[in-house]
Amino acid sequence: MPRWEPGARERMQAAALELFEHGGYARTTVEDIADRSGVTTRTFFRHFSDKREVLFGGAGDFEQRFVDGLGEAPDAPPWEAVCAAVHAVGDSFAGRHEHARRRHRVIAASPELRERELVKLASVAAAVTAALRARGVADVPALLAGQLVVAVFWTAFQQWVEDGSHRGLPELLEEALTAVGSLVAGVSGRVP
Amino acid sequence: MPRWEPGARERMQAAALELFEHGGYARTTVEDIADRSGVTTRTFFRHFSDKREVLFGGAGDFEQRFVDGLGEAPDAPPWEAVCAAVHAVGDSFAGRHEHARRRHRVIAASPELRERELVKLASVAAAVTAALRARGVADVPALLAGQLVVAVFWTAFQQWVEDGSHRGLPELLEEALTAVGSLVAGVSGRVP
Repeated sequence: MPRWEPGARERMQAAALELFEHGGYARTTVEDIADRSGVTTRTFFRHFSDKREVLFGGAGDFEQRFVDGLGEAPDAPPWEAVCAAVHAVGDSFAGRHEHARRRHRVIAASPELRERELVKLASVAAAVTAALRARGVADVPALLAGQLVVAVFWTAFQQWVEDGSHRGLPELLEEALTAVGSLVAGVSGRVP
Repeated sequence: MPRWEPGARERMQAAALELFEHGGYARTTVEDIADRSGVTTRTFFRHFSDKREVLFGGAGDFEQRFVDGLGEAPDAPPWEAVCAAVHAVGDSFAGRHEHARRRHRVIAASPELRERELVKLASVAAAVTAALRARGVADVPALLAGQLVVAVFWTAFQQWVEDGSHRGLPELLEEALTAVGSLVAGVSGRVP
């Protein structure tokens, strides 16, 4: 078996998602995933440190997209840069709605996976904070903006993957960004 | 040994904090904590589900204080109610600065404890969201306000426990609340 197998990583990710959906995350083993993908468990562990990571292999890319999005508006005030980054990351999910829904359902069903998701989001917030500090934003607004990015993205993303309304992620993100402004400006936000 | 031991819970919490500080969280066992507190491990497990929980036994109270804080401003718009709740919770930390600092240092040194802290904060956000929905706030602003409460509180709290400046928590909370408003209003936030 060659050390480099074209498509092995993607095959393992697809196989894991199917197995987690049908047999449950807790009952699926690394052996099951390797068998279904036609690889050895040794190959699995060359790509992923454990079973949980097979669902979070893209976490580094996800975080980097936020940082890159901020970089595209280098001279904008922090909130404007944050809005640009949120939209850039949202655009990168185009065509991935069904996959995002399936992955979300698996994560929502497992406390262990929900914890890993929280760690991932905290890491995104910290990366955004560091990027804003690097462009001269003071500590408190940089810390808050990092956490706000995550709050906005997560609120819209959850609606996108849970909602039956078929609204697009860009529209939901814009709504969440506007809602933060209205909330802080003291608009009541009551159900009309 | 009586089933109910006055002060046993507090003794175990104090002993655990000292042991975690001096020997490290990972190397301290439940037996060590029980020995130092003069109780059996069985008593330990009547109070705490595991070693980690000895540091998070107050998490339910912490969350409830946010919900109670919101309840004290029943007719206020959501952001005003959130500000009131943040201040009410901040006031409840009066006289606990040294304990908060020590606890924070132990948590910051352990990835496992940092994860538990994230879970606690996510639970506070969800409780605030639920309380706001119950008073008629729509989903998106309720979700965002829940996460904003946590972002503001956490930003100020971290400064309070890390900072050498000896500023009070109420002042740091007010600064963080104001900074959210300035951030979203587009004020640059650059270091002067």
